[in-house]
Amino acid sequence: MAADRYIAITGGVGGAKLALGLVQLLNPEEISFIVNTGDDFEHLGLHISPDIDTLVYTLSGQSNTDVGWGRRGETWQFMQALKQFSGETWFNLGDQDLAMHVERTQRLRRGATLTVATRELAGALGVRHEILPMSDAPVRTMIGTANGELAFQHYFVRDRCAPAVTGFRFDGAAAAAPTPQIEQRLDDANLAGVIICPSNPFVSVDPILAVPGMRERLKRAGVPIVAVSPIVAGTAIKGPTAKMMTELKIPNDAVAVARHYRGLIDGFVLDAQDAALESAVLALGVATVVTQTVMLTLADRQQLAADVLRFIKRLK
Amino acid sequence: MAADRYIAITGGVGGAKLALGLVQLLNPEEISFIVNTGDDFEHLGLHISPDIDTLVYTLSGQSNTDVGWGRRGETWQFMQALKQFSGETWFNLGDQDLAMHVERTQRLRRGATLTVATRELAGALGVRHEILPMSDAPVRTMIGTANGELAFQHYFVRDRCAPAVTGFRFDGAAAAAPTPQIEQRLDDANLAGVIICPSNPFVSVDPILAVPGMRERLKRAGVPIVAVSPIVAGTAIKGPTAKMMTELKIPNDAVAVARHYRGLIDGFVLDAQDAALESAVLALGVATVVTQTVMLTLADRQQLAADVLRFIKRLK
Repeated sequence: MAADRYIAITGGVGGAKLALGLVQLLNPEEISFIVNTGDDFEHLGLHISPDIDTLVYTLSGQSNTDVGWGRRGETWQFMQALKQFSGETWFNLGDQDLAMHVERTQRLRRGATLTVATRELAGALGVRHEILPMSDAPVRTMIGTANGELAFQHYFVRDRCAPAVTGFRFDGAAAAAPTPQIEQRLDDANLAGVIICPSNPFVSVDPILAVPGMRERLKRAGVPIVAVSPIVAGTAIKGPTAKMMTELKIPNDAVAVARHYRGLIDGFVLDAQDAALESAVLALGVATVVTQTVMLTLADRQQLAADVLRFIKRLK
Repeated sequence: MAADRYIAITGGVGGAKLALGLVQLLNPEEISFIVNTGDDFEHLGLHISPDIDTLVYTLSGQSNTDVGWGRRGETWQFMQALKQFSGETWFNLGDQDLAMHVERTQRLRRGATLTVATRELAGALGVRHEILPMSDAPVRTMIGTANGELAFQHYFVRDRCAPAVTGFRFDGAAAAAPTPQIEQRLDDANLAGVIICPSNPFVSVDPILAVPGMRERLKRAGVPIVAVSPIVAGTAIKGPTAKMMTELKIPNDAVAVARHYRGLIDGFVLDAQDAALESAVLALGVATVVTQTVMLTLADRQQLAADVLRFIKRLK
């Protein structure tokens, strides 16, 4: 009998933590990651896919755990030289990291899909688990602010999430589609569950769900879909999720995240610090599990992954 | 009275040595460099201009005098990472050097001419003397070999000049033209002389002379044109010049270089080691000066520059 298969939906750093836990427990043929490309952008003539790269570097053991992004042992000679030319230095590109962007851009220019380029580049770094861009077509997350729309990286990196958010738009989503590789995984008879990693619901997960057909296909798969709360005790472990919720006048708690996913998810994983919120989530018609979701160590990542997989089995 | 002006025609490393001597003696408004772009190429999606960069790095004090090319204090993290992706690693790109190529490529894509991009990038590194690409249109030196034509960098770097040369072709030259900036310098009433630096006559200087109108305009300027021999005692100080001459069945001596430039040059600078060849050069109807042309120290460079300028004044 073929093994159960899982799909995990993830953005960058927060989601990659759980992803690292999952690959400790599951073989490459047991899980595929569908990754946000809404924060991809063209910069200095290069195609940059921050969330894919975070996952590739994390799963290959290349991630820089000191700064929380980029590659281990990274150097910055290129950026220093770029400064001399008054080049655009608001987005940091490490010397090693550059090789990823240059190679990806080359492969895309020669006609490779982002899916194929990702498979090749991740494979070259030794990643054996499948990393699937949410779409091969460009979808670009646009951040609505009081002063107009900002491209995601302008909001996130250049402006350090300072502008107050009024809404989101996924430019190009209407023309995008799940890739054949994603369709194949969603149609797999052994699919046993879908995990929504603790990523930002608005700018990491929603872009994926905005790909036409993605949400319907996930539901149609008929397997438990569980989300892990990226909000713990009212704050985001990583990134601007809580700040965004405040600006959007949504209560910044885990219940609001569960409500955000209502209609899609069957189960929701709450941190022990938010045990008091369990009943409010159950009242949404969503099953719950309460456990430690804050992942500081590799053991934490593995423990949460095990809890999530057990939760899915329970819901099945 | 405005100062005399000079034009120096140069390729990469060999020519840049004399160029460095010339800028010690002449102010920015007294000399312009016309530089070979025949060995420019597109690589990893970047526009690379090796001879321009050699001159920029040399004149800005950024050149790596240990290896003879590239930037001082260069690191190779990008190349190491590129290797992991099985990228094209036959052409070494340093981490700092990459910034030059990325910025140039960006500026060209946004519509800047190579002349303008070069001025901006050289200026950013503190170069005050004018560096003029021979043309803004692409001219690509093709090396004829027994096994067919090779793009210049494939011959020069990838194949380390191993293939025997049968001839040269300057692809795109027919459609190229001297830039307005070069025309202005050639038409300058104060132009006092033209210096052909000790660069490879076949693949550094000839591509420049192959730009339609360049040779005629140089002659029409009516000022002394003097060349410095890149061949000393039968060998090239730098690069494959002597090897090429042997393969082309041209005697590999300074006289053959003078003969190569016959009809264009008025004067020829021989190294003291080749004093015995002076009469043969004079017999070509070309004036001569014999001096030390091998430039090991900065003082050597300056001394040769002074000799060349004195020679031009004598010929005037």
